[in-house]
Amino acid sequence: MEEIKVFCPATIANVSCGFDVLGLALEAVGDEMIVRKTAKKGITITKIIGQDLPLETSKNVSGVAGLAFLEKSDYNGGFEIEIQKNIKPGSGIGSSAASSAGAVWAMNELLGRPFSNLELVQFAMQGEKLASNVAHADNVAPAIYGGFTLVRSYNPLDIVPIPTPNELYATVIHPQIEVKTSDSRKILKTNITLEKGIQQWGNVGGLIAGLFQSDYELIGRSLQDHIVEPIRSILIPGFDELKSNAISAGALGGGISGSGPSIFALSKGMDTAQKVADSIKKTYQNIGIPFEIHVSKVNTQGVKPL
Amino acid sequence: MEEIKVFCPATIANVSCGFDVLGLALEAVGDEMIVRKTAKKGITITKIIGQDLPLETSKNVSGVAGLAFLEKSDYNGGFEIEIQKNIKPGSGIGSSAASSAGAVWAMNELLGRPFSNLELVQFAMQGEKLASNVAHADNVAPAIYGGFTLVRSYNPLDIVPIPTPNELYATVIHPQIEVKTSDSRKILKTNITLEKGIQQWGNVGGLIAGLFQSDYELIGRSLQDHIVEPIRSILIPGFDELKSNAISAGALGGGISGSGPSIFALSKGMDTAQKVADSIKKTYQNIGIPFEIHVSKVNTQGVKPL
Repeated sequence: MEEIKVFCPATIANVSCGFDVLGLALEAVGDEMIVRKTAKKGITITKIIGQDLPLETSKNVSGVAGLAFLEKSDYNGGFEIEIQKNIKPGSGIGSSAASSAGAVWAMNELLGRPFSNLELVQFAMQGEKLASNVAHADNVAPAIYGGFTLVRSYNPLDIVPIPTPNELYATVIHPQIEVKTSDSRKILKTNITLEKGIQQWGNVGGLIAGLFQSDYELIGRSLQDHIVEPIRSILIPGFDELKSNAISAGALGGGISGSGPSIFALSKGMDTAQKVADSIKKTYQNIGIPFEIHVSKVNTQGVKPL
Repeated sequence: MEEIKVFCPATIANVSCGFDVLGLALEAVGDEMIVRKTAKKGITITKIIGQDLPLETSKNVSGVAGLAFLEKSDYNGGFEIEIQKNIKPGSGIGSSAASSAGAVWAMNELLGRPFSNLELVQFAMQGEKLASNVAHADNVAPAIYGGFTLVRSYNPLDIVPIPTPNELYATVIHPQIEVKTSDSRKILKTNITLEKGIQQWGNVGGLIAGLFQSDYELIGRSLQDHIVEPIRSILIPGFDELKSNAISAGALGGGISGSGPSIFALSKGMDTAQKVADSIKKTYQNIGIPFEIHVSKVNTQGVKPL
């Protein structure tokens, strides 16, 4: 195979209680990417459609992830990348992760899968580092593995794929304001109370148990974040009202997607997720900030060929 | 039924990463208790064999738990309790929880199960409050539900039973020194770093996932506590050496049982758990403090009739 076209899913990191460790991949939102082998060494980004992003390899997340891949590979050639960028950078649904993960996943396919998913995550994390100064894995892991993933540990990196209940749908609203991941990280406190820590790991345990058992009510009860959400939500106009309306409309729960400004809600079934979208739409129209809304099944496959 | 004799299991709370939320019940270690209906109202503790503990209802954990039970019950009589106390108070393997949980479980059986397991935990928590000033649930929940339990939330109380892999065995050593739960709680810091919090909820997620999948390696990797163990282990002579020797002998991992001084290790299979016991025994003989060692399967039933 000389060339492959792939779908690179948007992802929701943190998933309320799982700050820096949990993430999930979306089915209906993502980029498209064409990757082809070249005799010329290195990574060449030939085209980016949809967003104004640097083509220069060392300044582009897929370029940097690709270079990390090449460094560990015994392949003698290089790759060309074309990106149809549908996910807006800074939206909080893993724009950089989609590009990083998509690039290395596609390269791995073209070379006959020399690397494991865990290694691909490690390469893609280099793209994340370029985007936000932190090599976090909570978006690239679900982008590569699909479904829900837990980053149990960063050192050593330990990714645990978590099963996804069949009827789980996400509703995501992206208010068109900019929140930079790096800024959104700066406002966090470096200390938390032990009491809030206990609540948080109780909820992480509950969410994982709920996902394993397809216990939607338990998933809903566990979608709570007493540590990061109270601080970051201040940056997102209408957050509290929107979340409470989403739950009134039937959502199991919700929170900030990644570092925001996108907000997500999880629901059981497409119909409810759509009702939640309608409720969110109404709430946000009153606020008067432009926005996009997505309704999507959880993608259990991760990056996939198109 | 007028009278019932029950086994009240010892329990390991916290289970390394799950401070205040996780616990498991043991099969081979526990108290025995006879509970019988009486025309006389209230709770009468007629006999305690094996330990010097107060017979006065309001000063005995099973008495206090029993009174909490009676208060919510429409039963017009009372109960008499006899306890064969095999678990030493202050050992860190849920001595008070066994008495509290055993009493209310037995009473519920005698009355035809008017209360749910969750309600029984709430009654038993009153006994815990008497014992340590904190109405914690991480010992009484596994004592009543059996197996592993997660206290997802205290307010409202939300207990999640977690499946137990078939070949999971615990080795527990009880060094004969006294560490009071209340003292052991006082030395904890009220703040933790966000970074350690992230490690902790990553490990809780990993442990829950490992238990659901019978992934013993993942269970082992997740048995880490970067928050409480470094502080509390100072109170337990030989802790670090013992833990490291247990792991060398084949244990998946281990830590402090509850607030100590008991130390536990989990192993796959009885043979390994026995080897771990031998290693621990050797280590502790060198230290020169008297001790007891137990090897036990995880008890998946909780309190049970004898």
